[in-house]
Amino acid sequence: MPVSARNVFEGRITSLVDGPVNAEVELTTAGNDRIVAIVTEGSVQSLGLAVGKEVVALVKAPWVMLMAGAPDLRCSARNQLAGKVRRLTKGGVNCEVELALPGGTIVHSVVTNEAVLDLGLKVGSEATALIKASHVVLGVPA
Amino acid sequence: MPVSARNVFEGRITSLVDGPVNAEVELTTAGNDRIVAIVTEGSVQSLGLAVGKEVVALVKAPWVMLMAGAPDLRCSARNQLAGKVRRLTKGGVNCEVELALPGGTIVHSVVTNEAVLDLGLKVGSEATALIKASHVVLGVPA
Amino acid sequence: MPVSARNVFEGRITSLVDGPVNAEVELTTAGNDRIVAIVTEGSVQSLGLAVGKEVVALVKAPWVMLMAGAPDLRCSARNQLAGKVRRLTKGGVNCEVELALPGGTIVHSVVTNEAVLDLGLKVGSEATALIKASHVVLGVPA
Repeated sequence: MPVSARNVFEGRITSLVDGPVNAEVELTTAGNDRIVAIVTEGSVQSLGLAVGKEVVALVKAPWVMLMAGAPDLRCSARNQLAGKVRRLTKGGVNCEVELALPGGTIVHSVVTNEAVLDLGLKVGSEATALIKASHVVLGVPA
Repeated sequence: MPVSARNVFEGRITSLVDGPVNAEVELTTAGNDRIVAIVTEGSVQSLGLAVGKEVVALVKAPWVMLMAGAPDLRCSARNQLAGKVRRLTKGGVNCEVELALPGGTIVHSVVTNEAVLDLGLKVGSEATALIKASHVVLGVPA
Repeated sequence: MPVSARNVFEGRITSLVDGPVNAEVELTTAGNDRIVAIVTEGSVQSLGLAVGKEVVALVKAPWVMLMAGAPDLRCSARNQLAGKVRRLTKGGVNCEVELALPGGTIVHSVVTNEAVLDLGLKVGSEATALIKASHVVLGVPA
């Protein structure tokens, strides 16, 4: 995939709710994961988005928030993907965290080193990736 | 708080405006700071959001823009929090900047090293944190 | 410009579509580039946004996704700016990529080092910057 986004989820549109400015689009992957995206009505028109169409959901790693431990917090983020930490790559300020979902999908997140310490994240830790619907870009194979 | 988001603002919902796809939710903290969030109507329903309810607003550090000096620019970012730089942590490309608000709340931002130079940010500098309403995730204690 | 956002596009509003919660605002730059932003109706009112008004569009570098090579993917991101890589600054996890557009505008993006490798980005590579409309902050000179 020729995009810098570390997260590329392939699927088919299973729901589409129109508004005057924005539309809410749900795609379901082959592994039955569901991703919700908010895109403009302009994009719905120009990309010809409709239920049944094949699309990819693109999410940059810094848009992915992580939640760890027993989740005592319910969140407005429409996308909540539970998995296990598979790899940590530390930089000066940030750390890239790779989460493996049960179906094998890898979710990439960039969080601060401080957050990794606070959450006690290490390889094997259980964590949930939170992605706001408005942070998802939809792509259509040309 | 078991989340990687460096900014967690606790408060109560003081306003809620519904739309067909999105809703605008305002929360007010104990220190009387107000945070505006845009979330989907799906989240309003599933979290039972309503005026008076206790919520937390979660914002990742890279989602926070900084403005420095005498602000000669008015912005569409619904959240504008003025404070003083308390700490700077430099990496290879990015710098984490901590801003202390008058009420004691700390706002965490990640900006490029170049931006820190351009704005002349150092400990003690006055700066304003800008946060778009559509970048705020709302959480409800379970 | 006293903001940390690495991307500041100056222009005039050429279109404005209102919704109950959000509005879609298009600005056109002097070089005829068009930038689409989604802002809240609250901001349309408080900033007095209207067709013809001078505004700046602010976009942080980590919010810019890059697409390289022959683009076989059409995207929902309303802003797609094609140019050539002018400079790469590597850190431990992230890399800042500067893209020069044909009209001379520089677009700044922060992506992971891994993405730079995957896309084979180097100075002179052709790439397209993708920016979601909901990630653009609008500013009005005070």
